[in-house]
Amino acid sequence: MLSEAFKERLISYQSTVDQALLKIGQDAEPAYLYDPIRYVFSGRGKRLRPALVFLTSSGFGADEDATLPAALAVEILHNFSLVHDDIMDGDDLRHGKETVHYRWNNSTAILAGDGIFALAFHQLNSLTDHSAACLSAFTNATLHLCEGQALDKAFETDGEVHVNDYLEMVRLKTGTLLSLCCQLGAILGKAEKAEIDSVALYGEKVGQAFQIQDDILEIYSDSGKMGKSLGSDIISGKKTYLFCKAKELNPSDWGNLMKSLDGESLGETISEIRDYLDANGIVAEGENLVKELSTDAVVQLEALPHKVQNDLTSFVQYLMERKR
Amino acid sequence: MLSEAFKERLISYQSTVDQALLKIGQDAEPAYLYDPIRYVFSGRGKRLRPALVFLTSSGFGADEDATLPAALAVEILHNFSLVHDDIMDGDDLRHGKETVHYRWNNSTAILAGDGIFALAFHQLNSLTDHSAACLSAFTNATLHLCEGQALDKAFETDGEVHVNDYLEMVRLKTGTLLSLCCQLGAILGKAEKAEIDSVALYGEKVGQAFQIQDDILEIYSDSGKMGKSLGSDIISGKKTYLFCKAKELNPSDWGNLMKSLDGESLGETISEIRDYLDANGIVAEGENLVKELSTDAVVQLEALPHKVQNDLTSFVQYLMERKR
Repeated sequence: MLSEAFKERLISYQSTVDQALLKIGQDAEPAYLYDPIRYVFSGRGKRLRPALVFLTSSGFGADEDATLPAALAVEILHNFSLVHDDIMDGDDLRHGKETVHYRWNNSTAILAGDGIFALAFHQLNSLTDHSAACLSAFTNATLHLCEGQALDKAFETDGEVHVNDYLEMVRLKTGTLLSLCCQLGAILGKAEKAEIDSVALYGEKVGQAFQIQDDILEIYSDSGKMGKSLGSDIISGKKTYLFCKAKELNPSDWGNLMKSLDGESLGETISEIRDYLDANGIVAEGENLVKELSTDAVVQLEALPHKVQNDLTSFVQYLMERKR
Repeated sequence: MLSEAFKERLISYQSTVDQALLKIGQDAEPAYLYDPIRYVFSGRGKRLRPALVFLTSSGFGADEDATLPAALAVEILHNFSLVHDDIMDGDDLRHGKETVHYRWNNSTAILAGDGIFALAFHQLNSLTDHSAACLSAFTNATLHLCEGQALDKAFETDGEVHVNDYLEMVRLKTGTLLSLCCQLGAILGKAEKAEIDSVALYGEKVGQAFQIQDDILEIYSDSGKMGKSLGSDIISGKKTYLFCKAKELNPSDWGNLMKSLDGESLGETISEIRDYLDANGIVAEGENLVKELSTDAVVQLEALPHKVQNDLTSFVQYLMERKR
């Protein structure tokens, strides 16, 4: 059971980050660049990544104020990747809000993303201590993020994506950023090399679990938003855990199902996919893998200070509370 | 007169940079990300920006090997901005080579640009000394670069762009990067704050002069390439020094000329624009401004070590030797 105190800490971190983001580029010009940037920063997000930076750094004894630039940097980096990914994926909406390229145009969104990327480094440069180590971890993470997105795009036109390929893709695309959060927090808390490595691995596994859980929620959530996004994922050939697993287990039946969906309504499509995934135990396999990865993540924490163990274990529980 | 020795130094710097760029991401995967990146790095360029880093750092006594990561970082940053700018401007060719988005597609080019951006920071992280100061200058420059590109795009649909607005745009878009080259070289050569400020201002003015000279060459060069690019600039409403000046001096005559060009062939268009700019002394004004800015740039060098003065003066002469 998650304590109320823990949930309140998350809300407090979220509010700190929301307020700090609103101040970035507040009066900056030109509007062509900064209007969309301010639009992105005024969006509402759960701010899970900066929360993870704060949780880790506080567990290792670092000060919240000294941690803020690093926490902001990862949230900003996350937003940069969303702005550019939304162009690449042709998505019109994100959390119910128009995406930048849809509200303005592609050029504006490319440039806004670039500016946001630069602003992330700007935050890191304002760290008073350990900035070299943080910058190095951060830069490596940005490259891995690009590599993960590249695999995701390449997989769209690849009919032979196996579950292991998928896991490597989400390790890079989602695991990298959560791992970076933990690394930055540990670096700022003056953790030992072995401790940094442990939380880095924890973050990577949490990221994979989180992404697979997202894939499941996308198919089983009842919201129209999720359905819409699922529809566009199927059309673009996006690979999810469930699709890779289904194909791997029974390529012929899965291929026939996919062919039979052609021309059907989105509602029928979703319902038939759900039935197939349920009947063949594929969702159950996905849910088991999420549990396994979460457990494996927590195992990485065993040799770490108790506060780190407690908070990062609670963080996993918090993520896993998201239900179908 | 430029010495042969100086020209040979530039060639040597160019070759060092060419070779180093070819090694970046040589065996990296996935191909979706790294194929276009390697394609960009294998392109031929004059490598003027890294040469300027080397010239400045050597003038202040820094070692060439220690300077290389900074020199590469600015060349990489320059390439990042070209890849994304080419998408925004819809350009198919760059220096006679297909642009990334034209050869692949927009998604690939957006992501390749992002990866290249990350690789620039990767270089800076490998600096052994002064990396914090270099990173701070570099990050500020990336933001100014985005601001300059934003003005350039915003001006396309703005009928009232004055020469001063244009000069501010090219200060940000072109001056920033040349200024950064000088700053990095000076920082690595352990220059004093006042010296860094002087070379920074020198670089900014050289950048403005270089861009205006480019605008003139684009209209007066006889190459088909330049003509093609001019044609697309006119269609997209791109603002150049000559167009802003022509409009400012005589909005009514210039407006009539522009209207009369509608439906004419590219050859006729260019020839009529040339005639107008010649007859109204607008090219002469442009050429004077290039000279003024160059002289003003060199003036900034007066209090600096002789070697810096000599090399950076030669650099301006070298740039200005590009003829109609």
